[in-house]
Amino acid sequence: MSQLQYKVLFQSGNSRIGELETAHGRFETPVFMPVGTQATVKSLMPDHVRDTGSKILLCNAYHLFLRPGPDIVKAAGGLHKFMNWPGAILTDSGGFQIMSLGHMVSISDEEAVFRSHIDGSLIKFSPEESIQVQVALGADIIMCLDHLTGWPMSFDAAKEAMHRTLLWARRSRQLEISPHQSLFGIVQGSIYPQLRKQCALELAAMDFPGYALGGLSVGERKKEFYDIMHYTCEFLPADKPRYLMGVGHPVDLIEGVMAGVDMFDCVLPTRNARHGRAFTFDGPLNLKNARFAAEFAPIEEGCDCKACQGFSRAYIRHLFSAKESLAWTLVSIHNIWFFQRLMDRIRQCVIDGTLERLREQIEALYPI
Amino acid sequence: MSQLQYKVLFQSGNSRIGELETAHGRFETPVFMPVGTQATVKSLMPDHVRDTGSKILLCNAYHLFLRPGPDIVKAAGGLHKFMNWPGAILTDSGGFQIMSLGHMVSISDEEAVFRSHIDGSLIKFSPEESIQVQVALGADIIMCLDHLTGWPMSFDAAKEAMHRTLLWARRSRQLEISPHQSLFGIVQGSIYPQLRKQCALELAAMDFPGYALGGLSVGERKKEFYDIMHYTCEFLPADKPRYLMGVGHPVDLIEGVMAGVDMFDCVLPTRNARHGRAFTFDGPLNLKNARFAAEFAPIEEGCDCKACQGFSRAYIRHLFSAKESLAWTLVSIHNIWFFQRLMDRIRQCVIDGTLERLREQIEALYPI
Repeated sequence: MSQLQYKVLFQSGNSRIGELETAHGRFETPVFMPVGTQATVKSLMPDHVRDTGSKILLCNAYHLFLRPGPDIVKAAGGLHKFMNWPGAILTDSGGFQIMSLGHMVSISDEEAVFRSHIDGSLIKFSPEESIQVQVALGADIIMCLDHLTGWPMSFDAAKEAMHRTLLWARRSRQLEISPHQSLFGIVQGSIYPQLRKQCALELAAMDFPGYALGGLSVGERKKEFYDIMHYTCEFLPADKPRYLMGVGHPVDLIEGVMAGVDMFDCVLPTRNARHGRAFTFDGPLNLKNARFAAEFAPIEEGCDCKACQGFSRAYIRHLFSAKESLAWTLVSIHNIWFFQRLMDRIRQCVIDGTLERLREQIEALYPI
Repeated sequence: MSQLQYKVLFQSGNSRIGELETAHGRFETPVFMPVGTQATVKSLMPDHVRDTGSKILLCNAYHLFLRPGPDIVKAAGGLHKFMNWPGAILTDSGGFQIMSLGHMVSISDEEAVFRSHIDGSLIKFSPEESIQVQVALGADIIMCLDHLTGWPMSFDAAKEAMHRTLLWARRSRQLEISPHQSLFGIVQGSIYPQLRKQCALELAAMDFPGYALGGLSVGERKKEFYDIMHYTCEFLPADKPRYLMGVGHPVDLIEGVMAGVDMFDCVLPTRNARHGRAFTFDGPLNLKNARFAAEFAPIEEGCDCKACQGFSRAYIRHLFSAKESLAWTLVSIHNIWFFQRLMDRIRQCVIDGTLERLREQIEALYPI
């Protein structure tokens, strides 16, 4: 098995059902990728993640570059073996983390220079190094290093970042990667249609096996986010997968599919879980709440996840009160299960032509 | 299935192989019970615990009395259902925790008065209440509330505590408990042979279905601990199980079996795990150590536990560095596995007559 294979199986409006085949498994799109930043989906064994129906994870090249280091992961036999995850993996290049976690010192066409969020050491990171790191990690899908457009950002600053992102993408595209790997380009351009369009078209001309939308849902209003997402997708090749980075909220997933997005990742299911916040198809629950102290129903009636099959709201509430980490594990299992079942529903609704109705139902429960 | 059934299957010196049958399963003794203080073995799913071959857990009536409260657990259908553990459970009465965690206000023949370690509230706890709590929790084996002898303790103080323990045991023995439950008496008396003997004999006269040795390994020298343990066992009925509370170290388990002990519990495998300390049959490892950063072997070569079957020392060391809770989970699985395999070896050595040799081997690896 070599590079990524993608085919569209069904299309309705801009929404599509597709199939992605990687060296580590085949799955339907639109797909949700749980986040395993540091080579572990927080508080979960790989079996737990697999049991939710997850087929592909996101790990973070920035974090793994700093710790344990790409050489360690490579010597372990690559990321799949290191973390004991048999499915597919996508690594984020680190562009977002350099901006959000690292203390940026300078950025030039050559490279980004920043201070590590772990020990404050000065680190230079070029697009070439990002690819080297990701080749060492060995994920199935790897990302070009991008210059992230934060929020708010002036047109001129966004334009400069977009051009640098294109420059870096062009250099990255020339580099050798492993035969089983596929490199995606990332569209930047903040909320400026002209910049997004130019970036999308120039990346498309470089003929990447997939394209990501970066720098969205970073603080802009939902309408701005949705509008620019829809607009950007128009300029991305129809025969390649599209990945909306770091998103998101249940309604965002539906809106993304309506725009023609095929791949999503977000920390929401696992991060919320650690704060006691569970997703259900009857709306959210805060399991730390005292009202659950004597509720012996599962998180969600009828749910087949391992948490709902064995444990009550009262028990989970007790675990949170007692500061027991099993609380995180159980709610994370349930929340990832919820996200995967939401994706099941989304795919079914694309086929049935009822995605608009699902959007209304979900938005009523999870207002944006 | 009603009360506990115990039979000795084989005896060699004071060591014995037995079988304990409870309403929640049958198992061989000597047995090691992992500790699930707050109705969860820390960082583990019940499946993980079961997969180590564990058949019986210890939970703590003091902790569960304070949080979530016995009414909640009872309304949940009892502790087995609450925590989703199908095997047997023993609950400790709380004597030890009142002394070690609570802020003791006063103790009389009537009751102990202490301040909760959670919120400082003033709590009165009598032997009758301890039994009530344990009946509500519904464990298979429950313990009389005892007046723990700390360390160091004068003969007179130990004598008073021993007499109070006997008084409380006598009152507890009269109380009604659930048909599937069995109540054990606890021998106190510090390191004073005369007190231990009197306590053991008087408890034996009350005809409990099992007997525990309490107040040992609380600070006294190993020789004092071992001597008084051997001495005390002589006065306990041969046809009833003997339980050494809160112990312990691998060598303590072997020494306990040599003295005729049948049951053990200890937080060592899980507590050490959370500090990165793994038990192996080649000696202990501290997995936080930098020397494991690029060691791609499992914690223990040839080990069949779920941690060793899928994860390397390097990965676990990374998880500790990155402060990921999966580190605790993996080492806890391995350490409980180690304790259960040690118990397998101990039982086999009792049968083979080679327990002394095992003791030497284990003591060479785990000096006392």
